[in-house]
Amino acid sequence: MSVRADRLLRSARQVAFFRKAGRKGQARQIVDGILPHTAVEFPMEYPVTTEIPLTDPRYNAILSEFYTDVTAHLQSLAQAGENVIVLCEGDPFFYGSFMHIYTRLKDHVPIEVVPAITGMSGAWTATGLPITWGDDVLTVLMGTLAKDDLVRHMTDTDALVIMKIGNNFDKICDALRVAGRYDAAWLIEFATMPQQTVMRLVDATDRGAPYFSIIVVHGQGCRLWAAGWS
Amino acid sequence: MSVRADRLLRSARQVAFFRKAGRKGQARQIVDGILPHTAVEFPMEYPVTTEIPLTDPRYNAILSEFYTDVTAHLQSLAQAGENVIVLCEGDPFFYGSFMHIYTRLKDHVPIEVVPAITGMSGAWTATGLPITWGDDVLTVLMGTLAKDDLVRHMTDTDALVIMKIGNNFDKICDALRVAGRYDAAWLIEFATMPQQTVMRLVDATDRGAPYFSIIVVHGQGCRLWAAGWS
Repeated sequence: MSVRADRLLRSARQVAFFRKAGRKGQARQIVDGILPHTAVEFPMEYPVTTEIPLTDPRYNAILSEFYTDVTAHLQSLAQAGENVIVLCEGDPFFYGSFMHIYTRLKDHVPIEVVPAITGMSGAWTATGLPITWGDDVLTVLMGTLAKDDLVRHMTDTDALVIMKIGNNFDKICDALRVAGRYDAAWLIEFATMPQQTVMRLVDATDRGAPYFSIIVVHGQGCRLWAAGWS
Repeated sequence: MSVRADRLLRSARQVAFFRKAGRKGQARQIVDGILPHTAVEFPMEYPVTTEIPLTDPRYNAILSEFYTDVTAHLQSLAQAGENVIVLCEGDPFFYGSFMHIYTRLKDHVPIEVVPAITGMSGAWTATGLPITWGDDVLTVLMGTLAKDDLVRHMTDTDALVIMKIGNNFDKICDALRVAGRYDAAWLIEFATMPQQTVMRLVDATDRGAPYFSIIVVHGQGCRLWAAGWS
């Protein structure tokens, strides 16, 4: 967590965070012991996560209503003069749910976004190997893409990060094999958390992976000074 | 800066950092007021930066010797029982000079890498717009790539980050025009620093940009809930 986020949280009066219904919430758990006991908490519980397929038109409608509702509450707090902190896992502008609030609110109340360490930085750091060197191209892919799209992008890049794994695990592994990147891939689960695991993808097959795990293929870039290594 | 990096720095006894000869050093300047006065500093001055073209074989040889020399010094400190902190701007494993030390040292002394906020996170946050949504593909390109390679990657991605601008500015602008991404591009100089500037790239042409500026094109991804916006 950044020093700036830490400072904001220690003096927080109002804190909002997303969570799955019935859970404590990952983001909320991370700030345990940092938030003052007096902070008023506003858990924003997703009405659905994986119960309805993304392609079902109801999914769209239900989540839209959810974001509109929570945004209305946040807006009313801000207009009553409160400073509200919205917790995000990773960088607020890099994928994630916060943007759906941000886009709805930004023309109505002032919003300050604090950049953060992305989950993918935590993941490649956990492998103990640099992700990109020299002129390497880095491509970040969501496992939800079609297999053909995955293969095309995996083939035409040096370094590779794949997120949103879960049910897409087998499709992603197939695509990596077709692209010739499978043997070089790593799987990182729960990056930077106490339960973090790091392994070669070849050792993880038939095992699956949680939705929030990350697959990484390191760039082998132009290592200008390799000739001089002793 | 992360809380963890801040803590390490406040109790630092030995601190190493890269800088251009004759400069104070960007990374060193950022930690002014955090480092204890008693910390022993080891500035690692690049023997060349832009005086010799990258393609000159001397460039390779000179920098190789430089990395070998500074690594030897860091190794001797570590083997004498010292904890040495190497300052990095951005994430240590995401491009940058630290990896050339890391690769030479990692089999000889224990190294702990602290992930950090990347310069590109700072840059897209400064634009006030999310960089990636839903299934967006993000591609990170170095301006040092050949124009054809730039165009190909710029065409086949949603969101785009381009780093190492400087002398490559005109080539990058041309490539963005060919790829049809020029009008949507933003230029951020000195992201997160006091002298930060943010502008549309169309307003920056004929102006050039420093080497460490960043160009960003935001993804327009699958905004699942756009239909419900009110």
